[in-house]
Amino acid sequence: MTSQSNTPLTDVTRLVAELAAPQVPRPVADTLPALAPRLAFEPELLLRAQDIKVVFFDVDGVMTDGGLFFTDAGETTKRFNALDGHGIKLLQRVGITPAVVTGRDSAPLRKRLGALGVTHVRYGTEDKRPAAESILADLGLTWQQAAAMGDDWPDAPVLRRVALACAPRTAHIEILGLAHYVPEAPAGHGAVRAVCDLLLVATGLYERLWREQSA
Amino acid sequence: MTSQSNTPLTDVTRLVAELAAPQVPRPVADTLPALAPRLAFEPELLLRAQDIKVVFFDVDGVMTDGGLFFTDAGETTKRFNALDGHGIKLLQRVGITPAVVTGRDSAPLRKRLGALGVTHVRYGTEDKRPAAESILADLGLTWQQAAAMGDDWPDAPVLRRVALACAPRTAHIEILGLAHYVPEAPAGHGAVRAVCDLLLVATGLYERLWREQSA
Amino acid sequence: MTSQSNTPLTDVTRLVAELAAPQVPRPVADTLPALAPRLAFEPELLLRAQDIKVVFFDVDGVMTDGGLFFTDAGETTKRFNALDGHGIKLLQRVGITPAVVTGRDSAPLRKRLGALGVTHVRYGTEDKRPAAESILADLGLTWQQAAAMGDDWPDAPVLRRVALACAPRTAHIEILGLAHYVPEAPAGHGAVRAVCDLLLVATGLYERLWREQSA
Amino acid sequence: MTSQSNTPLTDVTRLVAELAAPQVPRPVADTLPALAPRLAFEPELLLRAQDIKVVFFDVDGVMTDGGLFFTDAGETTKRFNALDGHGIKLLQRVGITPAVVTGRDSAPLRKRLGALGVTHVRYGTEDKRPAAESILADLGLTWQQAAAMGDDWPDAPVLRRVALACAPRTAHIEILGLAHYVPEAPAGHGAVRAVCDLLLVATGLYERLWREQSA
Repeated sequence: MTSQSNTPLTDVTRLVAELAAPQVPRPVADTLPALAPRLAFEPELLLRAQDIKVVFFDVDGVMTDGGLFFTDAGETTKRFNALDGHGIKLLQRVGITPAVVTGRDSAPLRKRLGALGVTHVRYGTEDKRPAAESILADLGLTWQQAAAMGDDWPDAPVLRRVALACAPRTAHIEILGLAHYVPEAPAGHGAVRAVCDLLLVATGLYERLWREQSA
Repeated sequence: MTSQSNTPLTDVTRLVAELAAPQVPRPVADTLPALAPRLAFEPELLLRAQDIKVVFFDVDGVMTDGGLFFTDAGETTKRFNALDGHGIKLLQRVGITPAVVTGRDSAPLRKRLGALGVTHVRYGTEDKRPAAESILADLGLTWQQAAAMGDDWPDAPVLRRVALACAPRTAHIEILGLAHYVPEAPAGHGAVRAVCDLLLVATGLYERLWREQSA
Repeated sequence: MTSQSNTPLTDVTRLVAELAAPQVPRPVADTLPALAPRLAFEPELLLRAQDIKVVFFDVDGVMTDGGLFFTDAGETTKRFNALDGHGIKLLQRVGITPAVVTGRDSAPLRKRLGALGVTHVRYGTEDKRPAAESILADLGLTWQQAAAMGDDWPDAPVLRRVALACAPRTAHIEILGLAHYVPEAPAGHGAVRAVCDLLLVATGLYERLWREQSA
Repeated sequence: MTSQSNTPLTDVTRLVAELAAPQVPRPVADTLPALAPRLAFEPELLLRAQDIKVVFFDVDGVMTDGGLFFTDAGETTKRFNALDGHGIKLLQRVGITPAVVTGRDSAPLRKRLGALGVTHVRYGTEDKRPAAESILADLGLTWQQAAAMGDDWPDAPVLRRVALACAPRTAHIEILGLAHYVPEAPAGHGAVRAVCDLLLVATGLYERLWREQSA
């Protein structure tokens, strides 16, 4: 918000006229040209991301901001993020499998993952490494084809083994020390989407997807 | 909060006396003069906003901060913002129609939009462009008379066609690239109100409304 | 968090010894001396606050962060703040009446105000000035003895008439223009408490209260 | 996010080749070496923390961000934090007792503390000092063996008596004045975990725990 209060009225009128003058008629809606995307990542990150076929997401502090909403019946509400959800859907469009390994379990989480079509899930898992390995086995993949995003100590054994380790900036300091990629967007506010974006760009299909969806 | 601990007591007494002395008696409540408004926008933005008759708001990440509160029954709670609500009511006062096109649907959203008197709504719309076009047809308006605010890829086809494209600062980077106006207030904390304010100022009726309501 | 990794171990041992050496035995719990308070305000603000006997609080965007949590049954949850609550209780201890005039109404709000002992309340009030005036009449007070905190246009007629006008920093720009005091703490995170603190300090009773409660 | 758009394609190819070349094959998952921890604290803090056997946590504004979610039935939901929960579990692993003294009481709080195994709790306690003293008596400990974290006036009598007083950065200014340690992470977003980390490091067992759990 800026002030124009000390601009004489005649100047504003002239400025408006100048701005209005060169306006070219907008093209008809149906013929808008496709748009080049703006997003880009550093080559080092793209190299790490280029063969990823599965990505393990922790839930609390990764898909959420770490908030645990308790009632007398336990954890009956969880707050997810809309940007993250669209990213997880786009991942599936390019053949990358989103998977979830979480130490907790709750009805809201199951409902959300169901809505996103995430089927490779392990709930209430104290020991996340064997859980991730069983998902890799189900998919016929190796650690070298996996990425992960986590924020706390139980995520460390998985983060240390994947080809691309990600952490939200609010992760515990030891987890930040393991991460190749720490997005600017906070957990619960787009951190998961940023990882999806990186993986999509690394596939080379991001630009086509964007041009299709923004037409 | 500042400290006065190292100001001698006599100085404070004198300062208080000085401050108190020139105080003119406050006018009687009923005769307070009307107030000039403080809000202003750049001429370029006002030019874009001046013929707008309808504004399309996305919901998640625009009317909310992107938070999706899930229970076992799905999305049973949504967090809206009071400043935004008052802005949407003011828009209607000056004859600009607030409309909503959203990819989701939920009882809380329907309840909120009902309370705000927003009747031009399309729910669960994967493809937002035809939905917006059908609202334009209902209102007898064109894209040149429309503004929109969105935060993610499904909003792009609408944002590219309207005369005034807005995005909250937490929008996806590609959407930020389409926006003419990105308010300082975040989504769910006044971003929608900022767009309403811009449209109100562009009508030339903002000052009269403010003088009326603040009297 | 700072690192000591490049400090030789012997240095740390010596430093710990030095720190430990001058430690005077802590006094027995029962004999801890009373504490001088740290809080202070500018003389101009204290002058404005010194005769206040009632303070009008708006609810949404003042006692909350402006979030409206909707379900299919309307606004069934509201998020208040613990610091604010303790401030409202302290106000009552020194004979200042907290009052609420709000454009909305909800069961959660009534529950919260009941728990805080706030009895001078007007709900669902489109026009806040006469509502505030009726509370002033009930209390036998004048606008010169009143403070108020508000964040949006409907609060303006009250804010313009009270002796001390306050607004949270997320208030609408026109409301910020009316405020004598804009606390650093955001709405829903202590903004109301800051106003209570100012009023308490202005009474001259803050220090005694703090010494009593911190003993 | 950085842009590579103005880097010629051949350069990127060469850069990728260079980056790829020195890559040593990742060790087999089972033989990953243990990791040295990154966390460190100032010697003064570690000295204060080294004999602590019990830590008193306030709830609102310490284990939460101060938000009180009210419905018509009172405070039926509370928002806790996942990082904090893991810290409280780790404390118990090294023989430090987490205790809670709170002025409020609610079903969600009882549910959460039960899930964390916190059994030394006093609910609805107006006067926190005797409540803390009764917990100390139960445990056969003294104030010199206790730490505490609080954010508001009722916490002051406890904070003044413990060997290590902690406060979140959003605590009331008088409480900040009593604190030896104010973590960077805000309340409800890891402030409790930071205190747990400090206590764990002071025991000398932090590194072993981290090496075990991250293997």
